Amino acid sequence: MDITAFYDIVENNDSFMITSHIAPDGDSIGSVLAMTLALLKIGKKAFPVINDVIPKKYRFLPGSNLIAKEIARKYDAIIVLDSGDIERLGFSKELNEYSGLIVNIDHHKSNVSFGDINIVDSGASSVGEIIYRLLEGKVEIDYGIALNLYTSIVTDTGSMKYSNTTAKSLKILAELVDKGVKPDYVSRQVFEKRSLSSLSLLKLVLDTLEITADGKLASLNITKDMMEVTGAMDEDTDGIINYAREIDGVEVAVIFKESEKSLIKVGFRSNEWVDVRKIAEVFNGGGHLRAAGCNIKYPLEKAREIVLNTVKMHMAEEYRERCN
Amino acid sequence: MDITAFYDIVENNDSFMITSHIAPDGDSIGSVLAMTLALLKIGKKAFPVINDVIPKKYRFLPGSNLIAKEIARKYDAIIVLDSGDIERLGFSKELNEYSGLIVNIDHHKSNVSFGDINIVDSGASSVGEIIYRLLEGKVEIDYGIALNLYTSIVTDTGSMKYSNTTAKSLKILAELVDKGVKPDYVSRQVFEKRSLSSLSLLKLVLDTLEITADGKLASLNITKDMMEVTGAMDEDTDGIINYAREIDGVEVAVIFKESEKSLIKVGFRSNEWVDVRKIAEVFNGGGHLRAAGCNIKYPLEKAREIVLNTVKMHMAEEYRERCN
Repeated sequence: MDITAFYDIVENNDSFMITSHIAPDGDSIGSVLAMTLALLKIGKKAFPVINDVIPKKYRFLPGSNLIAKEIARKYDAIIVLDSGDIERLGFSKELNEYSGLIVNIDHHKSNVSFGDINIVDSGASSVGEIIYRLLEGKVEIDYGIALNLYTSIVTDTGSMKYSNTTAKSLKILAELVDKGVKPDYVSRQVFEKRSLSSLSLLKLVLDTLEITADGKLASLNITKDMMEVTGAMDEDTDGIINYAREIDGVEVAVIFKESEKSLIKVGFRSNEWVDVRKIAEVFNGGGHLRAAGCNIKYPLEKAREIVLNTVKMHMAEEYRERCN
Repeated sequence: MDITAFYDIVENNDSFMITSHIAPDGDSIGSVLAMTLALLKIGKKAFPVINDVIPKKYRFLPGSNLIAKEIARKYDAIIVLDSGDIERLGFSKELNEYSGLIVNIDHHKSNVSFGDINIVDSGASSVGEIIYRLLEGKVEIDYGIALNLYTSIVTDTGSMKYSNTTAKSLKILAELVDKGVKPDYVSRQVFEKRSLSSLSLLKLVLDTLEITADGKLASLNITKDMMEVTGAMDEDTDGIINYAREIDGVEVAVIFKESEKSLIKVGFRSNEWVDVRKIAEVFNGGGHLRAAGCNIKYPLEKAREIVLNTVKMHMAEEYRERCN
């Protein structure tokens, strides 16, 4: 990994754009802001840019008011965080014209090493964890940086519940609490702000639960109608898939969300032995071993049929492999 | 605190009963088993006894098969864990006749120091954390002990989401992961085993949501009928109160559960400024600042009226105090 090269780039350049993928989450926003605040702290010009709406629940993060939506000027270097490829940034046109340095920092196994330098560690819980290690001993991690890094790690590990939770990530969280971060405060912001509409949505979605494959495959639907009737926001759908995944005996959970009438966003989760990234890749999606996603250009019922059949085939195959 | 006295008692005695409160939870069961396994490891006779059913989700804990329900013999000493008073053990009669040593290890502020020696640390996240510190450097913490202690800490902190999550508790969790504990495995056992009946129950309970006091007080009901119709178990009601607590703007959540037609178990949670222990104490209950409970001998509607009025009065008072 190009860690020395990274420090050299920071030292020898002045202005940085820090960016991450569209549909931003706690790790992408938290790590963009931690990197921004750290660069500002050592006297650099740092501009966080994310080409999408920042969900309300992340607006408590220090520096979030600085995030711009569009690329507005020239930079010496662009630091891309938490993005397996450069298309996910939503800036394809602008980046085609860009000739400066690109730094790629990520923890996705599927990362295509698109940067001039690439720091990709798929063993890290989150990009926040990688940034903590890059900053450690180089920049004083103040409360603002700590709060962003804590949020990165805690959201990408599902509050220490996912398999990417390591002793190393727990130790970093402890260090960040020592800097003043209050775990219950962060948790209330990012996990525990339920709107009444989100509860109404939850009830409707739970009514669509279907369980097949001998109880091992559970699926849920979120239709455009449900979103309209309840007044729920996009971010209110986060985490609903876990209600399916957590049912006793279930190995794979799939959620189908109507973006438009013929465009379905599909989310996959698994518990112990199914590699859902492989399933998502069949449909040109991607992600991690236990959490992945893709888009399908079909109406809901057709999308369900195709995807669930593929999941079942894939499960049968993995099951055979495991037992041979 | 009588820590040296504790080591002396362990050294100078041979047989120990290790016990905790009825309606056992992750911290009581995990800490009873960690202490049991540690005593066995140094060659003592150790007998875990809990006078209640052990919820299914905790039966993965090493040693859980050793737990007896009744006191069956004489012991040199009884080690009581996670219990504010001795009545909560459910052994009043037997303990009246007992003349041996009582060791009291707890983290409840309300603990009445009923032991011959008392190790009470209300700053500890959990009794599991206290036991980790007592064992550290004295007994090798093997995988079995580590798994019990990890479960204690992670359940009592709500997977690192509650205000008792400290840097110290995170560091201990990291040490326990280094001993081989898999955070996602524990999480699946204790937080993520949903039965289909528990999902059906959840939908019915969410239908009873009531919000008052300018959106600051949310309440839910669980009736005996709901339990029967859905076939849900007692343990399926764990955590439902958080759906009320997590609603944006809510400070206090109350859940009313019919034990019998005229016996209501009431649970309280708060987010930031209301001390719910004080409210529970009005009805002879107890607990912590942000989580408490009591029993009310009234039918559901009457119990709701009395309790919710008391909560409102109490909130108004605390609010006045905060703003003066």
